[in-house]
Amino acid sequence: MNYIVLQNENALYYECKFSCDNAIFLSLGKERFFITDSRYEIEAKERVEGATVVISKNLLDELIATLKSNKVKKVAIDPIEWDLYSFRKVKESLPLKFSYKPAFSHNKRIIKSAQEIEYLREAVKIGRKSFKAIAKALTERQGASEQELNFLAESILRDFGRRDISFEPILALSENAAKPHALPTERKLQLDDLILLDAGVKYKRYCSDRTRTAYYNGETLRFNYKQHFSDKKIQKAYDTVLKAHDKAIAKARCGMTGSEIDKIARDVIEKAGFGKEFVHSTGHGVGLDIHEMPYISAKSTTVIEDAMVFTIEPGIYIADAFGIRIEDMVVMQNGRAEVL
Amino acid sequence: MNYIVLQNENALYYECKFSCDNAIFLSLGKERFFITDSRYEIEAKERVEGATVVISKNLLDELIATLKSNKVKKVAIDPIEWDLYSFRKVKESLPLKFSYKPAFSHNKRIIKSAQEIEYLREAVKIGRKSFKAIAKALTERQGASEQELNFLAESILRDFGRRDISFEPILALSENAAKPHALPTERKLQLDDLILLDAGVKYKRYCSDRTRTAYYNGETLRFNYKQHFSDKKIQKAYDTVLKAHDKAIAKARCGMTGSEIDKIARDVIEKAGFGKEFVHSTGHGVGLDIHEMPYISAKSTTVIEDAMVFTIEPGIYIADAFGIRIEDMVVMQNGRAEVL
Repeated sequence: MNYIVLQNENALYYECKFSCDNAIFLSLGKERFFITDSRYEIEAKERVEGATVVISKNLLDELIATLKSNKVKKVAIDPIEWDLYSFRKVKESLPLKFSYKPAFSHNKRIIKSAQEIEYLREAVKIGRKSFKAIAKALTERQGASEQELNFLAESILRDFGRRDISFEPILALSENAAKPHALPTERKLQLDDLILLDAGVKYKRYCSDRTRTAYYNGETLRFNYKQHFSDKKIQKAYDTVLKAHDKAIAKARCGMTGSEIDKIARDVIEKAGFGKEFVHSTGHGVGLDIHEMPYISAKSTTVIEDAMVFTIEPGIYIADAFGIRIEDMVVMQNGRAEVL
Repeated sequence: MNYIVLQNENALYYECKFSCDNAIFLSLGKERFFITDSRYEIEAKERVEGATVVISKNLLDELIATLKSNKVKKVAIDPIEWDLYSFRKVKESLPLKFSYKPAFSHNKRIIKSAQEIEYLREAVKIGRKSFKAIAKALTERQGASEQELNFLAESILRDFGRRDISFEPILALSENAAKPHALPTERKLQLDDLILLDAGVKYKRYCSDRTRTAYYNGETLRFNYKQHFSDKKIQKAYDTVLKAHDKAIAKARCGMTGSEIDKIARDVIEKAGFGKEFVHSTGHGVGLDIHEMPYISAKSTTVIEDAMVFTIEPGIYIADAFGIRIEDMVVMQNGRAEVL
């Protein structure tokens, strides 16, 4: 099958071990082309594997010329990845038949190789170390604002991750943690606060992703599973989220769909009376992209297999009060989920 | 004119002073809608200005329903911004006429408001301070690798920029500077090296962009215009780039096209015999995006007006030997270019 990868760094990297911010990849079976501009010529020629590097001032024109000279009749593209402008230009230039493959690269990447799992394991390890260092640094920051704490957390992550982080970390206090994707405010860290930290680093371009929710009493802060909150409602919600997290990991099996695993976590939370407060899905795949397949959501029909890697991250969010989320990455091995 | 902004953070922010990584904006003249998911509900309702916040699990379905209930017949979209998947879904659901406006938001944003210019001026000021701090930090780093130096530069930029930088900085040594978008290597900083630094920070989401090329003699490093290289060919190229930079800024006028300004710089470099080594265009607009309109390139037909902001950044690149670039941001005021 002929296919094109358009301007998508991780998809490009997966094809030929190099990417840059202006490139198109064309596979015609045995012949494969990496089309980029002169700014990337030297590095592309050094690093691209298994494809001919073509330098051009206009990548789309070059793509059209290559399709034409190779008499290509049919080509697969990902309609999510393609912009309408490029599509219209190619379509108007050639009598080409398109086959639409949504999430083409993500589908290819859903089963991880042994090396990818090794990289992901290492990323998670560095992420775990970062959380320890952040906990230590936060302990004495009573009175610092969320913005300062976020900056501190990001600096530590960038240090451990040698600059590359999976996404801007989320560090939210008590009522701000009720927003699953909170932006940092001027709110100051106080005794009795809840601290939610969602963060990850990259190792050889592969992402880690981890969330912990902890109680701040001014003494040693620890991002452990075991937490004691002074507020009983928070403690009940926390214990529920932890139970949902543990059960989903213990009971996940190959052969289940994403929605069946989502249901394991969701049932625990619903039984405890917090069903409406678990506003997102249970998890998502992780790899070169921080969000990829398989999705562990109520709608996911993907059948889970060995060597898939995804998060388990149930949560409970009570508006204006608090939010709790506990997240780990797992890899399916021998039919079961192993925490990375 | 009705229009839609799809999943483009800076374009969304420009419309209503808030953005997040999952949102669609629809303007129907007086009625304006900001459609996002429940993760962003609290913040969107607090911060969105001049639009109704609509929360939905499926943004495209919500958009289609809103277009339908408002009996919209025609709508403008940016085909560069739209993915083919979303377009096909909307098109198949409604008898809607699309008007294609490539670079719709960039076109709207080409003339900066007084406040935007103030923000850009402040971003440039912070960027300039960062360069001073980086120069000081680099002075004693003889023997450190490009990777370490890049990490150091980025840490300083993030510190000055309060976490937000315009792009990953480029810090390249001598022969590596020949690649305009170099990735850092293990190459160590030595006496007699040339150091090229291209970097910027953000202030209230507005970007700065700056490049300097300096000579490293182990003593005080300065990212000044005045540089003395031990190698005569490098010095000749440097003086040529500086002359092209100065002349383009001095001679740029409102009423000229982007290509006419590009030509001022290009002519200086061609006359000095380096024409083929100036491989990119002279500049680009800067604002919420690091690259926006107007483009200062050989092909640009954009007529330059007051309150446009763009870079002037000529360069000369000799493969395997060295690269030089000098870049400043200018704002057009009273018909002329003022360096920010």
